[in-house]
Amino acid sequence: MRRGIATVSLSGVLDDKLTAIAAAGFDGLEIFDNDLIASPLTPREVARRCAELGLTIDLFQPVRDVEGVPPEQFDPVLHRFRTKLAVMADLGATTVLCCSHVGADAVDDPDLSAAQLSLLGDLAADQGVTIAYEALAWGRHVNRVGQAWDVVRRADHPAVTLAVDTFHLLSRGDDGAALAGIPGDRIGFLQVADAPLLDMDVLEWSRHFRCFPGEGTLDVAGVVAATLATGYAGPVSLEVFSDVVRVADPAVTARDAMRSLVFLEDQLGRAGAPPPPAGIDPAFLELPGSPAVPPLLGSLGFAPAGRHRTKPVTWWRNGDAHVVVNDGTAADPAIGILTSSVSGVAERAKALLWPAVDRTRGSGEALLPGITSPSGLHVLVSDRAGEDDHWQGDFVEPAEPTGDLLGIDHLVVAVPSLRLNEEVSFLRTLLAMEPGAVEEFMEPQGRLRSRAFRSSRGSLRVILNVEESVQSPASGITQVAFATPDVRASVGALRAAGVPLMPVPDNYYTDLDARFGLPPEVLDDLRAHGLLYDRAGDGELLHAFTLPLGTGFHVELLERRGGYDGYGSAGTHVRLAMQRAG
Amino acid sequence: MRRGIATVSLSGVLDDKLTAIAAAGFDGLEIFDNDLIASPLTPREVARRCAELGLTIDLFQPVRDVEGVPPEQFDPVLHRFRTKLAVMADLGATTVLCCSHVGADAVDDPDLSAAQLSLLGDLAADQGVTIAYEALAWGRHVNRVGQAWDVVRRADHPAVTLAVDTFHLLSRGDDGAALAGIPGDRIGFLQVADAPLLDMDVLEWSRHFRCFPGEGTLDVAGVVAATLATGYAGPVSLEVFSDVVRVADPAVTARDAMRSLVFLEDQLGRAGAPPPPAGIDPAFLELPGSPAVPPLLGSLGFAPAGRHRTKPVTWWRNGDAHVVVNDGTAADPAIGILTSSVSGVAERAKALLWPAVDRTRGSGEALLPGITSPSGLHVLVSDRAGEDDHWQGDFVEPAEPTGDLLGIDHLVVAVPSLRLNEEVSFLRTLLAMEPGAVEEFMEPQGRLRSRAFRSSRGSLRVILNVEESVQSPASGITQVAFATPDVRASVGALRAAGVPLMPVPDNYYTDLDARFGLPPEVLDDLRAHGLLYDRAGDGELLHAFTLPLGTGFHVELLERRGGYDGYGSAGTHVRLAMQRAG
Repeated sequence: MRRGIATVSLSGVLDDKLTAIAAAGFDGLEIFDNDLIASPLTPREVARRCAELGLTIDLFQPVRDVEGVPPEQFDPVLHRFRTKLAVMADLGATTVLCCSHVGADAVDDPDLSAAQLSLLGDLAADQGVTIAYEALAWGRHVNRVGQAWDVVRRADHPAVTLAVDTFHLLSRGDDGAALAGIPGDRIGFLQVADAPLLDMDVLEWSRHFRCFPGEGTLDVAGVVAATLATGYAGPVSLEVFSDVVRVADPAVTARDAMRSLVFLEDQLGRAGAPPPPAGIDPAFLELPGSPAVPPLLGSLGFAPAGRHRTKPVTWWRNGDAHVVVNDGTAADPAIGILTSSVSGVAERAKALLWPAVDRTRGSGEALLPGITSPSGLHVLVSDRAGEDDHWQGDFVEPAEPTGDLLGIDHLVVAVPSLRLNEEVSFLRTLLAMEPGAVEEFMEPQGRLRSRAFRSSRGSLRVILNVEESVQSPASGITQVAFATPDVRASVGALRAAGVPLMPVPDNYYTDLDARFGLPPEVLDDLRAHGLLYDRAGDGELLHAFTLPLGTGFHVELLERRGGYDGYGSAGTHVRLAMQRAG
Repeated sequence: MRRGIATVSLSGVLDDKLTAIAAAGFDGLEIFDNDLIASPLTPREVARRCAELGLTIDLFQPVRDVEGVPPEQFDPVLHRFRTKLAVMADLGATTVLCCSHVGADAVDDPDLSAAQLSLLGDLAADQGVTIAYEALAWGRHVNRVGQAWDVVRRADHPAVTLAVDTFHLLSRGDDGAALAGIPGDRIGFLQVADAPLLDMDVLEWSRHFRCFPGEGTLDVAGVVAATLATGYAGPVSLEVFSDVVRVADPAVTARDAMRSLVFLEDQLGRAGAPPPPAGIDPAFLELPGSPAVPPLLGSLGFAPAGRHRTKPVTWWRNGDAHVVVNDGTAADPAIGILTSSVSGVAERAKALLWPAVDRTRGSGEALLPGITSPSGLHVLVSDRAGEDDHWQGDFVEPAEPTGDLLGIDHLVVAVPSLRLNEEVSFLRTLLAMEPGAVEEFMEPQGRLRSRAFRSSRGSLRVILNVEESVQSPASGITQVAFATPDVRASVGALRAAGVPLMPVPDNYYTDLDARFGLPPEVLDDLRAHGLLYDRAGDGELLHAFTLPLGTGFHVELLERRGGYDGYGSAGTHVRLAMQRAG
């Protein structure tokens, strides 16, 4: 698969972009006309620079509003197209993207559009250039890929082909099936972009929220597969613009972009990335040692369960929940995960251009093999029980387990807004976690965007939070939720041990009554234990939160009943208000 | 007019909000249920607190999804409504907002909705409560005000009235005419909000982009006038939520909100704000003195035209363009404006709760009466020629004018994103400037949102720019554009004087050729002078920019021909790239 990217996908001036694209290992690129127009480099200088960098110019784009033009206004279009062809000759580019007419005066007549594209095709062919015609999702009359193909078919000109763009196609509700029956040699170019599912005007959506494949929710792989199935053998080229890439370092974006293409190839079963882990479970939470930690763990019902054979690290345990306290080099809380194969994760990380998994345990530096996410979350990787790299194998003097916690239910991780796409990509591409819907909550001063991820075949759950707040935004692990079989007992024990619990306002229980019509004795019991409550179908969630503990994170204790699978979103605004006030 | 505001319009917790609302002088407020639910104050404590603060609770809101409910699911609705009525009894609130059903299972049957509202009306009436029923713009079946009125009419219940919300009404394309024939005593509440014109899903638009009247583009005054014309005599209450107010200081927001209601009353011809200035023209640019300034002004063809009789201030002049150089206390560039009456502006500022106009010239502290905008732009106010407060009256030793500049064409002012709404309000409400459309441009690293304002009956033009960029955002005056009768000559003089002009890439002229098909000799001439060009109808713009001058702003020289009225937006991306590179 030939890997390409459009210069519009990167920030900076043209010269910066070319350098970043080459450094990330792309084969070719699309020159965005505005990048050229604003550049002091002449087209010939750009061509020379690309050749030096080993990049081919696969596309010149876009030339707009060239068909469906009222006939008496077509001469200026011919002049414009000829002028751009001359630029392309200097660039050495042989494919030009023409996108469907967006103007209010566009004529709704596929035969007229076809005839005009055919005339432009004659000019292009004289110079060995091919037109790739794209249905913009917001084109005035032509805005579905099937309509663009109809125009190309009517034009019936060897130099007039179809451009496929995953964003434009999917955002209008089409999918790969829309390409059925189109011969591969009639598709002149393939552009790929993903996006989160947002209910907004498609032009605004496109301008501000596109992202690289694997970061959003569109079925990009399906459309690419359908395009390749036609026999299309040209570049697969990323065209992504968003508020995030506008301000990001172009070298970082280019690397992220390349990673998304490798992931896409992997999804298509085409390429060298080792398969994702078959399922990931949480193993333990690692905490940096501090005088506050042992008493806190004791209050939470944890007891020492072993000590590391070489390092100043203690394993604490409550039932199936594990915490290791690192009095050595750890600076921030980290998460330990169980996977089928540490080396598999390491190889996949390498293939996807993520940072190398640090496997320097032998040197005495690291507790376990580890990798750091784009936002700085440190993930320690352990094999499942029985393998050489199982984390418990490093601990001696094991004690009998006590306590009845069921394990780590989920972690909440705060991510800076500009790092969110990368963090999503990390969880999806490396760990094969599946994203849920984006939710948004009001904070007393600010707002919180939140998205839950689950290991597709394991029990690891991570919630990414982006805070837009006046307070200096938190980062890293901000909440750790332990699952308990009896939250009332767990909360009672915490309270008895003097851990400060988040108070719940009485008005909350009045509202619970309004919403669920709970029996008075149930409401009284929830109130007496300071529990939040949610219900979905037959499932119920009962949960409670600590106030800040001086550890940088809150602890949540939660009891899931009857298959409740969410996180209690309906009460989140109350929690945020009370935790901020606390 | 009774002035109200919803607690959801402010950030903070409920107690903060009540304090801020009272401090800004509101008569009453709407209690947003979620604010109450998350508050440790009981409803009776909230009622007591409001009474202490002199605020009445005019509305409890919202109760959602109470009509169009499948009949077998109506019992839980009755329970929910009864529970909220009990809360309202403790609050002492007698109007409740019920908004139209948004759920996928809502039944499309106005008679069912009317019957269900009527049942709720019975419960409400028992307690002396009135329901105000609102058509949410995204209601499943009822989303236009006319539909909501139809349901209220069918319910035919004294305790079931219509709620009017300017945002919901206008965002669906209705206007005040939709209220024709509705008796005023059948309207139970009036909520007001403005918004910029954005082409996006109305729910997203509502959640993130509402603003106070006078900051957006909706005809809020028209709907309020129509509502008052029905005989409605209840509160006019602001319900505004947006990304900006979520993070702003609630005290600042409350003041801004109150100001918007005063402006609204003013637009309705109801209240005490003195009329806006009849038209504002630019008088001069004030620059803080520095060794670089006199040579720069000389290079721009300015010559000393007078000195201040008491202060270390020099008046420079080129034709009808004036600059005063202040070697005294001025810290940043400021704009001087000519108005019909300085005292009128001062009185209007006072009535609209803007900062007091500083008229301490007599004390020797200020050059002229002045006022500082929310973003920090200092505006010096002068009477027109012949009045006591004309700025030139302070200058002695006037010299004969030289040069041929036509004046200050416009200023560009950089505004932090979170201050934009306030700055727009300042220009609109105090100076009666009219906003143009919002435009957005790519920067090499970031993006720029831009909006031009013009004095409705004068020649002052100000462009507000919001930069979202990795560079530390600029603030204050970033560009000063002088109008010239012959930009080629002006640019030639600048170049001869050694002022560094922004280079224009050759590719730009190729693109100009493509777009406009200009004769080669015209293109060559533009290229030779380094001019940017735009055309609209018969009008043409020729302009050039300096590189950064060490003054914090660029200078633009521009020649408008044939009534060209814009700012050359098509070339802005080129300018941004070249100025950043330079």
